[in-house]
Amino acid sequence: MATTILGHNYIGGQRSGQGNVTLPSLAAAGGDVYPVAFVQATEQEVNAAVDAAVQAYPAYRALSAEVRAQFLDAIADEIDALGDDFIAEVSRETALPAARLQGERGRTSNQMRLFAKVLRRGDFYGARIDTALPARQPLPRPDIRQYKIGVGPVAVFGASNFPLAFSVAGGDTAAALAAGCPVVFKAHSGHLVTSERVADAIARAVKRSGVPAGVFNMVYGSVGGQLVKAPGIQAVGFTGSLPGGRALCDMAAARPQPIPVFAEMSSINPIILLPQALEQRGEQIARELIGSVVVGCGQLCTNPGLVLGVRSPAFTQFVAQLQAAMATQAPQTMLNRGGLDSYSSGVQRLRQIAGVEVLAAGGESATQAVPHLFKADASVLFGKDSPLEDEVFGPATVVVELDSRDQLLDFARNMHGQLTATLQAQPDDLHAHQDLIALLEQKAGRLLVNGYPTGVEVCDAMVHGGPYPATSDARGTSVGTLAIERFLRPICYQNYPDALLPQALQNANPLGILRLVDTEQTRAAISA
Amino acid sequence: MATTILGHNYIGGQRSGQGNVTLPSLAAAGGDVYPVAFVQATEQEVNAAVDAAVQAYPAYRALSAEVRAQFLDAIADEIDALGDDFIAEVSRETALPAARLQGERGRTSNQMRLFAKVLRRGDFYGARIDTALPARQPLPRPDIRQYKIGVGPVAVFGASNFPLAFSVAGGDTAAALAAGCPVVFKAHSGHLVTSERVADAIARAVKRSGVPAGVFNMVYGSVGGQLVKAPGIQAVGFTGSLPGGRALCDMAAARPQPIPVFAEMSSINPIILLPQALEQRGEQIARELIGSVVVGCGQLCTNPGLVLGVRSPAFTQFVAQLQAAMATQAPQTMLNRGGLDSYSSGVQRLRQIAGVEVLAAGGESATQAVPHLFKADASVLFGKDSPLEDEVFGPATVVVELDSRDQLLDFARNMHGQLTATLQAQPDDLHAHQDLIALLEQKAGRLLVNGYPTGVEVCDAMVHGGPYPATSDARGTSVGTLAIERFLRPICYQNYPDALLPQALQNANPLGILRLVDTEQTRAAISA
Repeated sequence: MATTILGHNYIGGQRSGQGNVTLPSLAAAGGDVYPVAFVQATEQEVNAAVDAAVQAYPAYRALSAEVRAQFLDAIADEIDALGDDFIAEVSRETALPAARLQGERGRTSNQMRLFAKVLRRGDFYGARIDTALPARQPLPRPDIRQYKIGVGPVAVFGASNFPLAFSVAGGDTAAALAAGCPVVFKAHSGHLVTSERVADAIARAVKRSGVPAGVFNMVYGSVGGQLVKAPGIQAVGFTGSLPGGRALCDMAAARPQPIPVFAEMSSINPIILLPQALEQRGEQIARELIGSVVVGCGQLCTNPGLVLGVRSPAFTQFVAQLQAAMATQAPQTMLNRGGLDSYSSGVQRLRQIAGVEVLAAGGESATQAVPHLFKADASVLFGKDSPLEDEVFGPATVVVELDSRDQLLDFARNMHGQLTATLQAQPDDLHAHQDLIALLEQKAGRLLVNGYPTGVEVCDAMVHGGPYPATSDARGTSVGTLAIERFLRPICYQNYPDALLPQALQNANPLGILRLVDTEQTRAAISA
Repeated sequence: MATTILGHNYIGGQRSGQGNVTLPSLAAAGGDVYPVAFVQATEQEVNAAVDAAVQAYPAYRALSAEVRAQFLDAIADEIDALGDDFIAEVSRETALPAARLQGERGRTSNQMRLFAKVLRRGDFYGARIDTALPARQPLPRPDIRQYKIGVGPVAVFGASNFPLAFSVAGGDTAAALAAGCPVVFKAHSGHLVTSERVADAIARAVKRSGVPAGVFNMVYGSVGGQLVKAPGIQAVGFTGSLPGGRALCDMAAARPQPIPVFAEMSSINPIILLPQALEQRGEQIARELIGSVVVGCGQLCTNPGLVLGVRSPAFTQFVAQLQAAMATQAPQTMLNRGGLDSYSSGVQRLRQIAGVEVLAAGGESATQAVPHLFKADASVLFGKDSPLEDEVFGPATVVVELDSRDQLLDFARNMHGQLTATLQAQPDDLHAHQDLIALLEQKAGRLLVNGYPTGVEVCDAMVHGGPYPATSDARGTSVGTLAIERFLRPICYQNYPDALLPQALQNANPLGILRLVDTEQTRAAISA
């Protein structure tokens, strides 16, 4: 299982490093440089990677769902087999602790296996059949059958903050490969050795499974724009910053053939404290909430960046409890120097807003991120350009005491799109705030009661999405099995001979899947 | 049922005509002007219409699916009740014959009823439930439940060529209203009296059903850009030209909050003749194909604009049969003067291409569209900028004799995205052209065997979509029940008390719908 790090791009099963620009792999703590440099893909290499994906698409999409499922399972096995040396390497590049990374490795392989299950379950086909009605008046109805196929090659951009679960073999890659779409992956510069080792694992799975070599390709360097503009690319998956994601969306929309971009970008994930919950569980919530703010050094898309409640003695006490809980936190090393700079300027920006004060900081450090608890006046929350709604990526949160329940509704009515919105609430609180919940539904992809948004479950029902700017398209999710839908499109066959239809649509229903046949959901075969 | 034509905009249940710019309703044949002029919406009126939709959205989306279904049924009843005077009026504005319009009226009300069925069937909810696993190690799984809600107010642009089925109460409006999205409709200037009468029908249904008045709004005039840019609008449905659709897409992508545009734009719908079908049914195909080219004066999105076969004696004979069939056609009145001008310049453009000749023209006329059959050299088909792939909207088609089967594959490999691709083929032809079919699948939304693309069935399995430039987003369809998906987004609830969940997600499954519960499709209730 020993892997030699080459630093070369992955193009259709071959390695290629023809460029002159190289990128270093830096240790997150200390900045030591890894001995091998990574060669940025040249324009020709990016095109070759896209071409490899384009070439692989017809053969790959023609494979049965079962064969694609076996391929995903093989990737999962290869990822599980990456050993402790691998975990140590990821930890060097990201400063994330081994226990977190072991968990994330399991999440990553489980994601692959979950999509394999989706492929075997067959609901992703969306099979719909309207049988012929030759005697219908005034016109006969032809036989019409619909299912879904992969849209074509997908460009995937790795996220820095989940070097395994949202990077090379992460959720977007899993969803695209499951959909039958070859992937061209742009490795994140923050974990290059990690990326190469995972790409090697996928390459081994490709060989073992006998799928076309071009189903997976990976390029290094600042080549994202070229990738999104490449005519062969048919969709984009991205997790990262709002400016970065928006730039890709704009490029994709300006192509001669526009393509969809699924960018997960920016969210402050408000936590709203309702009165009875505050009365009954304030201290516990304060402790748990600070835990959610600082976990993973706050480098989570669902990190709670805003905490709201209406003025009351219980809320005042809660803020003091938050303050005490934050004061016991310690600085943590961030994923990379750029992340620390960005966090520090975000903290600085908040400090400089009139009406914002620091309630607590967890220690001091020049090289690590210092957790921060801010308190802001309600006027700031409603201020021009909503300054509290700009994401500060790191272990910071802002608590705001509102004057009234009406202000809470005003906030919900005007807040930006969010990945999540959380209520800390007793049953009576919920009954008394149905109007608030209705507003939050319009603004968030996931609503939580008495939990914390960090820790995103990977399952059928998860939505990790939401209205702009949380994502670029609220109709998608990047976590959970519905993520496959982003990379599928419907196609229908009119008056096709049964034997030439895809198996999912044949009369006998050889896959045994649930289908919508003449307006009824059924697994029954159709009598010819 | 007598309707007085006011020419005023429909804003939240009120009529408003404050502007100074008016639009005439012209008779398609002759150009006579209707006595009432239609008042273009002012900037304030467009904003007011969007505001009315925004205000209606929370209440409308909160209605049960059954109540929304009753509303759609009521619209259907009101449309069916539009009498012969209505049909005569539409015919005056569009020159479409009464029989066609009576059929289209039925299609329009049936579309509404079909979406009502979808609402009652409940699969549009996409209900998914992962129940809590409190004992799971290392971490418990919370209860997570997902379903889909309407994205918010939708702007719909009426098509000229289906003044009923793809206009005011057409497919996009039906899909949006079914999804729980209020509509702001931009009336097409080609059938303004028709639009007002249908809007009145919807207004009556709104009153009868007790849904919020702002669920349906209609504006007159050149206000499309303002509508797409209005912050309250969350998605756009459009049927029309490629330049028009693309302009809306570009505007929507450039908004501070980009929104999806589902534009159905341009398709030449190739018909491919395979050898045995030519041998056995050439004459019949020629006759039927010309019928498909001239039906509705060729003003159909699925009109066959390109006919391809490989050189053979049978193909030569087929071309002669096409020629004979086209020569018997007569000029027809188009929907409006602009359409005739556009068709005439399209015909003129084709005439001027070297290697293109007119094989037959169905008569002569200065005021009507003359059906045309062109023949083009294969070199033109593969020429720079694919001149034969620019849609000529009207009763014209181009036949091309290819040198070889390989050329057929080359064409399929390089052709633009299409709504449809049709094979005229015997069983042995199909077996011998699997490679061709695989290529067509990548380029078209609907594949037909031994039929004609005109006459789009409205059903669950229909796909009226396809890769760009056929549409702006191949993942949607604008005909058939899957069209509702364009206007839905998923939302999930984590750890919500059962009683506060939407009915579709409650343990008892009070709606009795099929749900994905713990990875299994079931209608069973969940034991609490």
